[in-house]
Amino acid sequence: MPELRRDPITHRWSIIATERAARPKDFLVAKEPLPRPRVCPFCPGNEGATPTEILAVRPKGGGSWNVRVVPNKYPALRIEGDLDRRPEGIYDHMNGVGAHEVIIESPDHDFKLHKLPQPHLVKVLETYRTRMTDLQGDKRLRFSLLFRNHGALAGASIQHGHAQLIALPVVPKQVQELIDGSKRYFDYHDRNVFDDIIRQEVQDGRRLIHDNGDFVLVAPYASRFPFETWILPRAQGTRFEATSTQQLEKLAEILTFALDRLDRALDDPPYNFIIHSAPYGSDDLPWYRWHVVINPVLTRVAGFEWGTGFYINPTSPEEAAEFLRSVPG
Amino acid sequence: MPELRRDPITHRWSIIATERAARPKDFLVAKEPLPRPRVCPFCPGNEGATPTEILAVRPKGGGSWNVRVVPNKYPALRIEGDLDRRPEGIYDHMNGVGAHEVIIESPDHDFKLHKLPQPHLVKVLETYRTRMTDLQGDKRLRFSLLFRNHGALAGASIQHGHAQLIALPVVPKQVQELIDGSKRYFDYHDRNVFDDIIRQEVQDGRRLIHDNGDFVLVAPYASRFPFETWILPRAQGTRFEATSTQQLEKLAEILTFALDRLDRALDDPPYNFIIHSAPYGSDDLPWYRWHVVINPVLTRVAGFEWGTGFYINPTSPEEAAEFLRSVPG
Repeated sequence: MPELRRDPITHRWSIIATERAARPKDFLVAKEPLPRPRVCPFCPGNEGATPTEILAVRPKGGGSWNVRVVPNKYPALRIEGDLDRRPEGIYDHMNGVGAHEVIIESPDHDFKLHKLPQPHLVKVLETYRTRMTDLQGDKRLRFSLLFRNHGALAGASIQHGHAQLIALPVVPKQVQELIDGSKRYFDYHDRNVFDDIIRQEVQDGRRLIHDNGDFVLVAPYASRFPFETWILPRAQGTRFEATSTQQLEKLAEILTFALDRLDRALDDPPYNFIIHSAPYGSDDLPWYRWHVVINPVLTRVAGFEWGTGFYINPTSPEEAAEFLRSVPG
Repeated sequence: MPELRRDPITHRWSIIATERAARPKDFLVAKEPLPRPRVCPFCPGNEGATPTEILAVRPKGGGSWNVRVVPNKYPALRIEGDLDRRPEGIYDHMNGVGAHEVIIESPDHDFKLHKLPQPHLVKVLETYRTRMTDLQGDKRLRFSLLFRNHGALAGASIQHGHAQLIALPVVPKQVQELIDGSKRYFDYHDRNVFDDIIRQEVQDGRRLIHDNGDFVLVAPYASRFPFETWILPRAQGTRFEATSTQQLEKLAEILTFALDRLDRALDDPPYNFIIHSAPYGSDDLPWYRWHVVINPVLTRVAGFEWGTGFYINPTSPEEAAEFLRSVPG
């Protein structure tokens, strides 16, 4: 019997329909490789192919960069200008002011995030934090999203791995829903929903993939996608920008664990990786907590999902977690 | 300069970033053809390969079927059983009770919806209406969605064209948002938002693709996707199930126009087609109106969209509408 499961934060339902397929091997589909470019704009030596560098992390004592941040050459939003909010008949309109940056996490064209040495990955996470922190100084902006598209099917258009940071002049509806949903839970139960999820998942164990003390890695109860995974911090904090470097070291550890297991379980699947942080100015909401979502792209979103926001997931999170736990360490 | 545009119903924002590409020819990408099956379960003669027929439309005087409705062989939901709503610790859970039907709209393996003779297409739309009407008699169910996935990239898994009908025991959040958003507009302006959209689009003309008197075909102001199109009825009515056959004749006409133009402009693009109707029992909401959404699948949804619900659209609706109008008739 298929199951309907409701996400405790957003109240979104998922259909867990395990009769429709899908063992992990069913997802080992042909990848759509990105063409290997003649000249990679993100490789060392080609720095002139990107807009002016915003920031670079170099080894102590100097040398070539290890992490490099540049503006997106084809930005979805532009940093110059004012918002000019105005009507267009019955509609609402403003200029596309915002930031769109690219974080090149390694000079190596073929690197994978989870193969980076831990100190390098910590530098990467610190760079994410630095850029998000810097952008909140811009009074026109209200929210930023740090994300990573790995693989063509996940929306990557450049083969050389990179993250992106988009800062927006409005708080997206879906982000507000996460916060409002967390507050609804808090108002009702007088407890933080992230604490309750962690407590239940650690006790229950079926959807728990890893626990390193500071963070848990779980397959969420109402998973929308096969092998959807969340990294939840035990420490309360609403903004990723406020994490300590000590926390980032533990985050690097569990992120490496997660991406390595997904890579080996599903043969380097395309994935989207998202850091959910609260909007600028929301520094101390006791009901919300920053967290990380990793969505492997193994199924196609179709008419039903577009029309309803309901997701049909052919792999239960219990199966996904069991499979990821059983990948040899 | 990119633009931020807000949808007047849901208050969702889209980024119209036309500098990032994208003329129609940029979307003429390689299709991913579905394998031609050895035995097609939807072709005449293979009726035994589907579960027991629910309904068939045959020509007057008898003969082979023209339209055929069967249960989905791999249903996302099952029609038997009770909901058994229950907690699972902090989570909410119920059985996946519902209907999942397939509407095979023509016996011809290679048919396209917009190439069907108009009387045949009217029969198809009547069949949609009949099945949606029939399912609302089931007291466990609250909402149904009629949708069509055309092409592998749009989620189709069987080559022979077909629509699907899923009836759910809950009203999806996203459907409730459409209704609540329409009500917010109505409460504020004391006018129906669909009337206001139609009025502005017809007067303005830039996003209007076709107008046949009963329906308008528009590229919506805050389009999420390149060549997103909406079919909006002029007559007030919240439920597709309550349409008259005379309305369906005019709907068939404009639907044919829309799909034919998209087919010729974009070389048979994959698309999702969705009929938005109100939940069961919501028969007379003055603020809401049933309507049709057609989303060609030309871009990939990636980390930014998943993390925010914001869409980055490289083709403005004005360009899309102009291009669709200019396809020779």
